[in-house]
Amino acid sequence: MNGRFGDSAFCPQWAGCRTFGGDADCADSAPKRHNYPMLYRQDITACLSTTIGDRGASETAFNDALAGAQDALAWLRAELDGGGLPAFDMCRQTADLAELSDLAEGFRKNCDTVAVLGTGGSSLGGQALCALSSDHAAPQMRFLDNIDPDSLDRVFDGTAPERLGLVVISKSGGTVETLAQALTIVPRLGPGADKRVVVITEPGDTPLRRFAADLKLTTCDHDPGIGGRYAALSLVGLLPALIAGIDGAAVRAGAAETLAQALSADRAADVPAAAGAAVSVALSQERNIGISVLMPYSDRLAKFAQWSLQIWAESLGKGGKGTTPVAALGAVDQHSQLQLYLDGPADKMFTIVAPAHAGTGATIDTDIAGELGLDYLAGRTVGDLMAAEQQATVDALSAKGRPTRVLAVDKVDAATLGALMMHYMLETVIAARLLNVDPFDQPAVEDGKARARAYMEAKT
Amino acid sequence: MNGRFGDSAFCPQWAGCRTFGGDADCADSAPKRHNYPMLYRQDITACLSTTIGDRGASETAFNDALAGAQDALAWLRAELDGGGLPAFDMCRQTADLAELSDLAEGFRKNCDTVAVLGTGGSSLGGQALCALSSDHAAPQMRFLDNIDPDSLDRVFDGTAPERLGLVVISKSGGTVETLAQALTIVPRLGPGADKRVVVITEPGDTPLRRFAADLKLTTCDHDPGIGGRYAALSLVGLLPALIAGIDGAAVRAGAAETLAQALSADRAADVPAAAGAAVSVALSQERNIGISVLMPYSDRLAKFAQWSLQIWAESLGKGGKGTTPVAALGAVDQHSQLQLYLDGPADKMFTIVAPAHAGTGATIDTDIAGELGLDYLAGRTVGDLMAAEQQATVDALSAKGRPTRVLAVDKVDAATLGALMMHYMLETVIAARLLNVDPFDQPAVEDGKARARAYMEAKT
Repeated sequence: MNGRFGDSAFCPQWAGCRTFGGDADCADSAPKRHNYPMLYRQDITACLSTTIGDRGASETAFNDALAGAQDALAWLRAELDGGGLPAFDMCRQTADLAELSDLAEGFRKNCDTVAVLGTGGSSLGGQALCALSSDHAAPQMRFLDNIDPDSLDRVFDGTAPERLGLVVISKSGGTVETLAQALTIVPRLGPGADKRVVVITEPGDTPLRRFAADLKLTTCDHDPGIGGRYAALSLVGLLPALIAGIDGAAVRAGAAETLAQALSADRAADVPAAAGAAVSVALSQERNIGISVLMPYSDRLAKFAQWSLQIWAESLGKGGKGTTPVAALGAVDQHSQLQLYLDGPADKMFTIVAPAHAGTGATIDTDIAGELGLDYLAGRTVGDLMAAEQQATVDALSAKGRPTRVLAVDKVDAATLGALMMHYMLETVIAARLLNVDPFDQPAVEDGKARARAYMEAKT
Repeated sequence: MNGRFGDSAFCPQWAGCRTFGGDADCADSAPKRHNYPMLYRQDITACLSTTIGDRGASETAFNDALAGAQDALAWLRAELDGGGLPAFDMCRQTADLAELSDLAEGFRKNCDTVAVLGTGGSSLGGQALCALSSDHAAPQMRFLDNIDPDSLDRVFDGTAPERLGLVVISKSGGTVETLAQALTIVPRLGPGADKRVVVITEPGDTPLRRFAADLKLTTCDHDPGIGGRYAALSLVGLLPALIAGIDGAAVRAGAAETLAQALSADRAADVPAAAGAAVSVALSQERNIGISVLMPYSDRLAKFAQWSLQIWAESLGKGGKGTTPVAALGAVDQHSQLQLYLDGPADKMFTIVAPAHAGTGATIDTDIAGELGLDYLAGRTVGDLMAAEQQATVDALSAKGRPTRVLAVDKVDAATLGALMMHYMLETVIAARLLNVDPFDQPAVEDGKARARAYMEAKT
C-alpha cells in the first residue's frame, strides 16, 4: 500500500520493486543488482489487483506484459550496442556541449528575448526543460509553436528587434508552419540578424537549408536518425535549455543514469519504465483503461507533462491502438478534474509525480492561523500542504480502485527532469513493442498535411 | 458536408441547422424563428451517421437525446423565469459593472502586477478572459492557482512589493490553498497593502472573511447561488478581466445573446448548446465515445479550453457517468496529438473552434517563397495557412469517421468568448439533465479534502 504522508513509501534502492511481493524482494536483493541510485522512485502497487481490486491489473496480465517488456529491453540493448537508437544514446554524449554552450552564451549576451520557432517535437522538449529556469540573467524564452497570426504579430512586443534572437527548428527543413514563421519574422529582425539566429535542421537540400544559406545563418545539424518527438536530449531541447540557464550536462546525466539502470537490470520488473509500460498495457488490454493521466504536483513539471503527451500519443496511437494521454496538474486539478477522476467512468490510470515538498516554502504564521480558526495550518509550510494534498490524491484514487502509480522525486531539477524524460522515452518504446506498433512513425498525419497543402495550392 | 476552405460552410442565421436535413430547413424558416445574429456558428453534421458512417450518432439516438434537450430547455426557462440559476442570469446584469470598473481602475493605477489567488473556478474564468488581452497599459496578470512553494516564492519576482496587487478569491472562504496563499503573501506586500487587495468570497463567518476584516481589506460578495465553476461571468471572472483591459460589458453581452437565443428558440435543434449536448450524449451512449476534445485554432482560446475542462468534468463526472474532456490546440497539436486522433482508438468526439483566419497576419514574400521552392506560400498570409490547416483537420477527422463538430467564429474577442462560455455552460447543464446527474455538485472531491486535512492535522 502507499505510505503515509511524510514517510517514504518507496524503496530508494530499487525502483521497480513495489510490484507483486515486491517489499521482501527489495530488502533482500535489490542493492546487489545494480548500483544506480535512481533520481526517481516508482510505486505501481496501486495499479495492481492485489491492492485495488478488480480494476487493477491481475498478476497474470501484468506478468505476461512484463515478459514482453523483458524482450523489449533485450531489443533495446542490442540496438544500442549496434550503434542504433541515437535519440537514446544521445544522453551519453558530452562532446557537443561545449559548442552548444558557446551558441547559448551568444544568445545570452546579445538578446533580451529568444523566440524558438518550431512545433511539436521541435518545441516541447525545450519548453519542458526551460520551465525549470529561475535564471534572472537569462533572456526571456518564447516558444512560438503555432501560426496563430495574432501571436506572431506579438513576437516583437516588449523587445527591441535588435535584441530579439531566434532558434529555428525543423527536422525535415520543410515544416510549413516553421517556414512561414521564419519567412515572416527573420526579415524584421534588422541589422546583424545573422548573428542572432541559429537554425537546427537535418542535412540535405531543403527549403529551410536554402533559406539559412541565403541569409548566411548559423546552421546546426539535426541528427536524421532522431525523430522529432525523441529529440529533447539533443541540441533541439538543449540549446534552448542552455540559453535559459539550465544545466544541460545534468539533464543528460540524469537521463543517462536512467538508461544505464534499464540496460543493466536483469529483470524487467526492476526497470521502472519496463514495469510502467507493462502495467499500462495490461490495464488497457485487461481493464479497458483507455486514458492515461500524468499529474505532476509541480508547476515546473507542467510542461514536462505536455511534452509527454506527444511522445505517447504519436508513438502509440495507430491502428486503433494506444491510449489517450492527458496532462493534469496537482494540486490545481483537484479543483477541476478530480471529481471526474474519482467518480466518473473507470477508464483511466493515473501517474502522480510527487516531489518531496514537505517542509519547503513559506511558513504560515501560527498566531494568524490560530485567530482564523485554522489551527491545522499553524506553523506549517505551503510545501507541507502540497505534500498532504498529493498524498491525499494518491490515497483517494487508490481507495476508489483507480489504478494509480507514483513517481516520487526528491528534487525538481535538471538531472531529475532528464531522468523522467528518459523514463518516458523508454516506457513509450517498450509499450510500442508490447502493442506491436512502430514507435517512430506517424503515418496518419500525412493526410492532414496533404489536405492543408492542397487547400493552399488551390488558392494560389 | 463541411464547406471548402475559404468558404463559409455555415448558415449564419440559424446555428443549429446543420443537422439532419438541416440545409433546406435553414434557408426556408430560420430567420423567422429568432433575430439573434449568433456570434458563433455550429456545424454538427460530421458527428452524424449520415455524414461519417457508423461512428456517428444515428438519427434515432440523436433525436431521442434532442427530445431530452427540449425538456432541459423548458426547465432552464422555468428556472430563469423563477429567479433561479443566477450564474446564467448574471450575463444579463450590468448594474455591478461600474463598481467593478472602479476597482479595476485602482489596480491599473497602483499596480505593475496583479496576482489572482484562487484555484479551480476562482481562477480559470479569469484566465480565459485575460488571455484575450493585448492591452500594454494593463498590469501583468498572474494567476496563482497552485500552492507549489516554488511558484509562490516567485510571485514577487520582477515586481516591487508596493506595486503588487492581489485579488483573493474563494467562494466558500475556506479553500485551504487560497488561505495558505493569502496568509503567506499578504503580510509581505508592505505599506498600503489594504489598498491593493480585493477579496471575493460569499457572506458568512469564514476564515477568509475574518482575515479580510482583520486587515480591513476591500471585500466583495461572491453570490452564494453561483457555483465556482459557473462563476466566470460574475465578478470572479470579470474583475481580473477588467484589470487586464477586457471589455466586461461585451463579455456579458455576448453571453446574453447566446442565452437569449437558447431561451427563445422553439426547437432544441435550433439551439447550438442543446444540439451539442444531445449529440455528445448520443455519441457516448450509442458509440461509446468517452473522450471529448476541444481544439480551438487560436492561442488566445487555449485558456478557454482549459476553463471548459472544469465545467464539463466536475459537472458531469459522477456515478460512473460523464465523458473525459481534453483540451488541445490547433495547429500545434497536429504535430502532437493528431496521429492518435486519426488512427488511435475511435473513442473521441472533436470540437474545432475555427476563427476566420484567412487573409490575416503577415504576408509571406513572394520572391523569397519562390526562391525556396515554396510557391504555394507565395503572397499568402500566415492566417491563410492557419485557415487551411484547421479546415484540413476537420476534413481529415471527418474522412476517418471521427465525430467532429465545428464552432466557427468571425472574431476572437470579448463578445465571442462570452458567447462561447455561455454555450459551454448551457451545453453542460443540458447534458447533465440528459445524464440525470446534478451539474452543480462535486461530492467525490470531499474525500480527498478530508484526507489532506487529516494528514495536516496528524502532523500538528
